Parts: sequence; structure tokens; C-alpha cells
Amino acid sequence: MPESPRSARREHWREIIFESETPAGRRFDVTLLWLIGLSIVCVMLESVPSIKRDYGQPLLVIEWVFTILFTLEYLTRLCVVHRPLCYARSFYGIIDVLSILPTYLIGVFPGLQALLVIRVLRMMRMFRVFKMARHVNGAELLVRALYGARAKITVFFAFMLAISVVSGTLMYLIEGPEGGFTSIPTGVYWAVVTITTLGFGDITPVTTLGRLLTSVLALTGYAVIAVPTGILTSELSKLDGDDTSDACPSCGVHGHLPDARFCRRCGAPMA
Amino acid sequence: MPESPRSARREHWREIIFESETPAGRRFDVTLLWLIGLSIVCVMLESVPSIKRDYGQPLLVIEWVFTILFTLEYLTRLCVVHRPLCYARSFYGIIDVLSILPTYLIGVFPGLQALLVIRVLRMMRMFRVFKMARHVNGAELLVRALYGARAKITVFFAFMLAISVVSGTLMYLIEGPEGGFTSIPTGVYWAVVTITTLGFGDITPVTTLGRLLTSVLALTGYAVIAVPTGILTSELSKLDGDDTSDACPSCGVHGHLPDARFCRRCGAPMA
Amino acid sequence: MPESPRSARREHWREIIFESETPAGRRFDVTLLWLIGLSIVCVMLESVPSIKRDYGQPLLVIEWVFTILFTLEYLTRLCVVHRPLCYARSFYGIIDVLSILPTYLIGVFPGLQALLVIRVLRMMRMFRVFKMARHVNGAELLVRALYGARAKITVFFAFMLAISVVSGTLMYLIEGPEGGFTSIPTGVYWAVVTITTLGFGDITPVTTLGRLLTSVLALTGYAVIAVPTGILTSELSKLDGDDTSDACPSCGVHGHLPDARFCRRCGAPMA
Amino acid sequence: MPESPRSARREHWREIIFESETPAGRRFDVTLLWLIGLSIVCVMLESVPSIKRDYGQPLLVIEWVFTILFTLEYLTRLCVVHRPLCYARSFYGIIDVLSILPTYLIGVFPGLQALLVIRVLRMMRMFRVFKMARHVNGAELLVRALYGARAKITVFFAFMLAISVVSGTLMYLIEGPEGGFTSIPTGVYWAVVTITTLGFGDITPVTTLGRLLTSVLALTGYAVIAVPTGILTSELSKLDGDDTSDACPSCGVHGHLPDARFCRRCGAPMA
Repeated sequence: MPESPRSARREHWREIIFESETPAGRRFDVTLLWLIGLSIVCVMLESVPSIKRDYGQPLLVIEWVFTILFTLEYLTRLCVVHRPLCYARSFYGIIDVLSILPTYLIGVFPGLQALLVIRVLRMMRMFRVFKMARHVNGAELLVRALYGARAKITVFFAFMLAISVVSGTLMYLIEGPEGGFTSIPTGVYWAVVTITTLGFGDITPVTTLGRLLTSVLALTGYAVIAVPTGILTSELSKLDGDDTSDACPSCGVHGHLPDARFCRRCGAPMA
Repeated sequence: MPESPRSARREHWREIIFESETPAGRRFDVTLLWLIGLSIVCVMLESVPSIKRDYGQPLLVIEWVFTILFTLEYLTRLCVVHRPLCYARSFYGIIDVLSILPTYLIGVFPGLQALLVIRVLRMMRMFRVFKMARHVNGAELLVRALYGARAKITVFFAFMLAISVVSGTLMYLIEGPEGGFTSIPTGVYWAVVTITTLGFGDITPVTTLGRLLTSVLALTGYAVIAVPTGILTSELSKLDGDDTSDACPSCGVHGHLPDARFCRRCGAPMA
Repeated sequence: MPESPRSARREHWREIIFESETPAGRRFDVTLLWLIGLSIVCVMLESVPSIKRDYGQPLLVIEWVFTILFTLEYLTRLCVVHRPLCYARSFYGIIDVLSILPTYLIGVFPGLQALLVIRVLRMMRMFRVFKMARHVNGAELLVRALYGARAKITVFFAFMLAISVVSGTLMYLIEGPEGGFTSIPTGVYWAVVTITTLGFGDITPVTTLGRLLTSVLALTGYAVIAVPTGILTSELSKLDGDDTSDACPSCGVHGHLPDARFCRRCGAPMA
Repeated sequence: MPESPRSARREHWREIIFESETPAGRRFDVTLLWLIGLSIVCVMLESVPSIKRDYGQPLLVIEWVFTILFTLEYLTRLCVVHRPLCYARSFYGIIDVLSILPTYLIGVFPGLQALLVIRVLRMMRMFRVFKMARHVNGAELLVRALYGARAKITVFFAFMLAISVVSGTLMYLIEGPEGGFTSIPTGVYWAVVTITTLGFGDITPVTTLGRLLTSVLALTGYAVIAVPTGILTSELSKLDGDDTSDACPSCGVHGHLPDARFCRRCGAPMA
């Protein structure tokens, strides 16, 4: 099918922007990744009071430069994609808009009363972080393994929550409001902090019984971490197996190494 | 065997309430799960002083609604089950009673002196959490893996406790009551908090020798976590094999290795 | 070879005390285990100031009862063992003496000035904890796995120590004595506490650079825990394989399940 | 090829210093390892104020002895190595220089104003720690496993950082400067400390929403640790296979599966 020069150019740009197989496409992705990273660093620096006081003006300029760059990128994406509406409503399409919108909204509604809201909106540009995930290669295997183990992981989290709720309630009864356990939700928060071996130390047991329960909970959390690890390890090894598993065309044995040229059981050449 | 319409209806309800294979049974289980979750949230909210002051009355009403619902559920279970006494004395039968009893006891003994006891009794409704485990699918594999590894896990816990007792005693001798290590049980509590890498920081070493021992203990706990993980991972991978294997067509035994060509129990060829 | 009745009786007792295959031997071991556990609980309780004040006298009596019992046990062991000197100089022989000696030494030197030394000596009875390990079944597999991986584990610990020393030194330079990092050893202690994700919080970074290094160190410790886990998991799975691996007498294939009666590859009966 | 006695002697020394196959070479390495360890302990002791005051003079002498010994070692290495320039510019060549330079610089510039810089330079001798890694056997397998999994580990770290940045920003918005979250970088530092289950407790949430987010973050960090563990375990088990397999007798390729009967590269039967 002959293509018009314009649609060929559009297709050329689509490949650069949306695909990363060509050298130009890869260069575009890496550049974008660096720009996103830099813009996030700027937002973070702006939140430090001393930096905002001294370098507030330059940071605002940089912020607008980034916003305009990302706006141009978004418009180009809309132009070159095959089905613009489908892209605009996709997960990344929405993220792309959310990551540039806050700066414009600050420009449009420059009222004093909106200051707090603005702060919240600005932070939404942090969604740019999620854009990074798309550009990093190899994340898919992990996502597939987590997806395959989602039932077991859900059960595990439910189990952890059940233990946390019961332990938090018991600690609320044992230690009471005097020991910092002012309510059951606080106790559950403490139990989660304890069972994950986080241990902030903002709330700690003082009674003997409370300390005994804490020890049991800590040992449980310490030992039970084996569960998600065991689940994911077996899931990952399954997927690793999937990647390398071509059956021998002659004897049908599976599980060959990735670089196998001959079947290790019957010696027949692999296709 | 022809059944009377009444026993057929009873059997129909038994399937809905006790089994989860039919769509109606699954819907019943999910509804019950949500009700249990909501009732737990209510108990948790009631324990927050500010919420209890403002919304104490509505929460009491909701509490009674839940209690009556769960009581009806318990009575229906007793009616439709084949052997009611056997169910009533089973683990879940007892949990079902314990999760509704406290509210009634508060109603029957409304004395001031019983207030503290009541608080404890109310919290027993938290046992409803354990009821959730029954309704979540897929928990069985984990339970079987933990059951299969119970001997090794017991040894591991004994080993951890032995290290904790010895380390706690040594720290009690090294740091002494001045450093917060007021007794050997306190030292053991600190050792458990340290070896599980929880690290509250309510008791910390100040002497050089104490810090050296803490470093050794922390590194031990950090490295030794590999033990339960290794145990459970190999146990889970064994059980995973069980799930994916076919039964022997001749004797029906499960759990064959993936490359099995003959049944390991009766020697019959596998299909 | 005919044995005299006396040597037969001695051999009978030796089997009860040193072996745990016979029912009598197992019963002896379990009883001893409980006695050791109880004696440790008594020493721990004695260290709590309030309990010592109220129950000091009964605890002293119980302490002497335990010491006499363990002394009798030690003498019986010496009598019935084949080579008493060899046992007395073995690891457990020395531990057995150390676990009874302190009580006698307190009795022999009852001076005021020796009080502190006595406290140290009494605690040595905690070595009884190590005796428990001998009596718990199934610990051997773990010990063998740890022994097989000792080279890798040593390398891992050396690596962790090297990172801790370098990080601790850097933090000493970055944060300085003002931030609690009073010397390089203190910095190394902090680095060990951080890299093991223990995190007491007694010493925390306050400068931006210090917090950046802390984040890097925490992420390193978080990710690097995979190393000992990976080492031990592969070591344990190797040993698990060892346990179940009888070769098929007909075709020589290894790796059968523990309950296999027929080879899964050729169908021949297993011996 | 006949060698001159001098080049033979040089080669003999090269083997002792650079290789560890011969008994003399192993003895040299172990001696050097101990010397490096001792010199690091000296630097650490010197940083403790009380020790520096009392033993400053002897420590300075020991420091110079170590520096001269390591200088001689470095010069000998330069003499006996085949390509001195190549060694001098290699990673370990630079480390070797950096580990002796600071002491000389303190001797050359003995000004008051340089005191702080001197302190930094002295600490650079800590790079000697890295020299230890070269001398410990068996570290290579771990390095190879980490190298093989570098893509997945990078993705994992990027994922952790993304979660930390987003969580830290959210906590900055939720808790605000009053709760210790003074800026987004501080929030990100807190998020890293929390997700790695380090939990210093220097900054802790106080609002209900903040505690809820903390619980979610802690559970995420607790479960997600399964990812690097799973990655490395499967990588190590792959490499373990490499170690135990025989080379193909025909083409010399390593890394066959345990049950291989034919070489997967050339198809020749394995012995």
C-alpha cells in the first residue's frame, strides 16, 4: 500500500515517540527520561524553604520551561498517534495531562485563597514519576510474576491485616491509653509497624505482657516474611522457565538452556 | 434415594451457607465477609475517644444490628448443618459464638463495675477476623506449606529464642540497669526486638562492648532471616509441584514429578 | 561377646542418657529439656528487682535443687559414658560443667566484694540454653546447610563489614560529633544498625548529605538481604535433594519423591 | 623459552604477590589482609577522642609503619608486574595509591588551616577495606550473580525510588512541616527509611491519614523485599549449575543441566 509523504513522516515520528526499537526512538526516550527526572528534582528543591527563598525566581522559570516542553510533547503525541482519543483516555494519556496541568492552573487562578490547593496541584506533577516506569526496560517480567501470584499475595496481606487488627486490639487492652495506645486504630498502626519490623519507636510497650506480645509479634513478622519471598521466588523461577522452554522437536523434552542447539537427552538438533 | 421437599430445601440452604461452589453460596460468603469487615471497623471507631463522644449512639445501634444479624446466621447454620453438635464444638463454631456473645453480656450485666470487663469482652468480637480466613480462597496452600515445615520452623524459633536469651543476659551484664536493661526479661525483650531487626530504640546500648554485641546480633538477625525463607521456599516449590501434576490414571495418586512417565506408587504408565 | 550384668546395666543407662532412639531415652531427653527451661526461667525471674525482693528465698532453694539435679546428671554421664575424659573435654561436657559451677562458687566465696563477679558467674548458667539445641530433633539439616555455605556467608559478612566501615567513616566526616557521630567506631555501629534495617534511632542523620547516604545505605541493606537468602535457599534445596535421592536400580535416574515405589522414568520397582 | 635468572626471580615474586595459587602466595595474601585490618583498626581508634588524647603518639608511629609497609608493597607490585602502567591505572592500582597517600600529604602540608582537609584525607585510607575483597576467595560467584541480574535490580531500585518520591510528597502534603516533614526531600528520606523497614523514628506520622499511608508503605516494603530475593535466588541457582557441571569433552562448553546426556552446543555425547 503506497503511503502519502505526510503520513509516512507522521508514522516516522510515531515510531520515534512511541516505540523504542529504532536508535532515534531510544534517544528520544532517554532524553525524555532525563527531563522528567530533572523536573522532579526541581519540584523537590522548590519545597525546601531556604532554597525557595533564595532561588524561587529561577526555579519558577525552569518549571515553566519544563511545562511547555511536556505540553509540546503531549500535543505531538496526540498528533502522531493512530487513534488520539484512545490515547487521551489511556492510563498514560491521563498521567501525561495530570503532569502538566497544575502549572497552568496556578497561572490561571492566581488568588491568595487558592494557595493551599495550588500546593496540592503542583505535587501532582509527581505523577511524572510513573511515566518513568514505561521507559525502563525489563520491568515486565516482575509485573507478570506479581500478577501471577496476586491471589496468594492477597491472602498473605489479608492474613497480615488480621494479625495486625487482633494484636493491635490486644495491645490497646493490655497497655491502654497511658502507654500511647490511645485507640484501636492506633494499636493497629503500631501492630503494622511492628510486624513489618519497621519499629519507629514512637509507641512502645512498657508492661511485661505487652513486651511478651511484642516479642511474639516481632518473631512472627520476622519469620512470616518468608511467605511473600517464597511465593515470588517460585513464581519468578516458573516465568524464567517459560522464557527458555522450547520442547525438543525430536523427543519432546522441555527445560533446555537458552543457548541450547542440541537436545540434551537425545542429541537431536533444536530448531 | 428420594428426599422430602423439606430436607431438600435444608440441603439447598446448607450448600449456600457452608459451601462456596454455587453462585448463591459464593454471594453469601462475600456478603458475610463485607459484614464482618464493617462490624470490625465499627468496633475500631468506637474505641477512638472523640468518635465515641460524638457518634456513640449510632454506633451502639449499628453494633446491635450486626449482633442480631450474626446471631441469625449462627442459628441458621445450626439448623441446616448435618450434625449441629459437631459444628457447635468445632473451631469455627466456637468462634461464631464468641463473636456475638460480648454484646449480649453487656446487655445482661449493665453494672458500672463490669465496665472494664465489658471492654475486654467487646474486643473478643475481633475473633470475627479469624472468620474471614475461612472465606478467602487459596489460603490452604500456605497453611499446608507451613504445616509441612513445622518441625524446621520450630527448631528455628528455638534457636532464635536461645540466642535472644543468651544475648539479653549478656547485655544485662554489660549495660546494667543504668542503660535501661533493668532485668534479664527486659534484656531478652530487647534482644528479640534487635534480632528481628525491629529496633524500637526505647532501649539502646551506650557502652562500646554493648554496641559491639548489638552489631553482631543485628548482623546475625539480618543473615539468619535466610533460614525461614529458604525453608518455606523449598516447601512451597514442592507443593506447587503437587498442584500441577495429574493423578495416576490407574491408582489415582497425585503429586508426580513433571517428567514422570510411570506412576511412582503402582508403576502404571502415565497418560 | 558376653557382657557382665554390670556393664550391661551401664550400657542400658548410657543409651537412655546419651541416645534418644529408645522410648526411655526420648523421655529422659524431654524431661531434661523441661528442667533446663524451668531453671532458665528461674534465673530470669531472679533478675527482676521486685520479684527478687518478694520471692528471693524460694528462688534460691529452687536454684539449688536444679543445681543438684544437673550435678547428678553430669556425674551419671561421666559414669556411664565409654570414655569419660573424652566427654569431659568435649564441647557439651564443658558446657555441662559451666552450667552448674556458678551456684557452687557463690556458695564457696560468700563475700560482699564478690557480689558483682557472682552475678556474672550466675549468668553463665545461661549456657544451659545451648544444651537445648542438642535435644531438639531436625536441627542438623540447617546446620549442614549453613556449614556448606560457610565460605559464601563469610564473604557476605566481610562485604557487609567493609560497607559498614566505609559508610560509618563517611558519616563521621559528614555529620561530625555534633550529630552524635562522636567517633569512627560509633559511625560503624550506626552503619551496622542501618544496613541491617534495624534502625534504633538513637543516632540519626540531620544534614542533607548524611540523609542521602543513609537512604543509599538503607536501600543497599534492603536489597542485599537477598544474598544470604539466595545462598541458603539453593543450599537447602541441594540438601533436600540429597535426602530423597536414591537412584533407580534399573535405569539410574535420581531425584525420586520420598514415597516412590516405582521409577518414574522406566517403571521398574525401587528397592 | 629460556628465561634469565633475573626475570625468573621477578616472575617468582609476581606469583607470590599477584597470585594466590602457591602456598607462598597464599601466605602473602593472608599476611597483607591482617595488616590492612590492623591499620583500619588503628585509624578507627585514633578517631575516639579519649584514645587519641592518651595514645596519640604511639598511634602516629604505628600509622607511619603501616604507611611505609604499604608503600614498599606498592613499589614491589610496580616492579614485578608485567605492565606497570596498566596496573597503576587499574581500579586496585588507584586504590593502592589512595590508601597510602593521605599520611604523606599530612607530612608535607603541616599547616593548621589544612587540619580539616587532613582529616578527610586520612579517612581515605579506609579504601584499604576494598582491597580486602580481592583477597577473599569465593566472592566472584556473588559478583557474577549480581552482574547477571543488574537489569532487574536496576528496575527494582527505580521502582522503589518512584514509590519513595510519591509517598514522600504525599506525606509532606498530609503531615506538613509541623509533623517534621519540612520539605519534599525530607519526606523522601522518610519514605526510604520506612519502605526499607529501617524505621529510625526521628520523623513519625501523627495524623490518621499519615498513619494509614505509613501502614500501606510499611506493608509494601515488607512484601516487596521478596523481589530482589527472588531475582537473586534464581540467578544464584543458575550459576550454581554452572559450577557443578562438567565441560563437554568434545567442545569444552560448560554449564550443562545435571541430567544432560548430550552437549547442548555440539550434540556430542557427554561422558
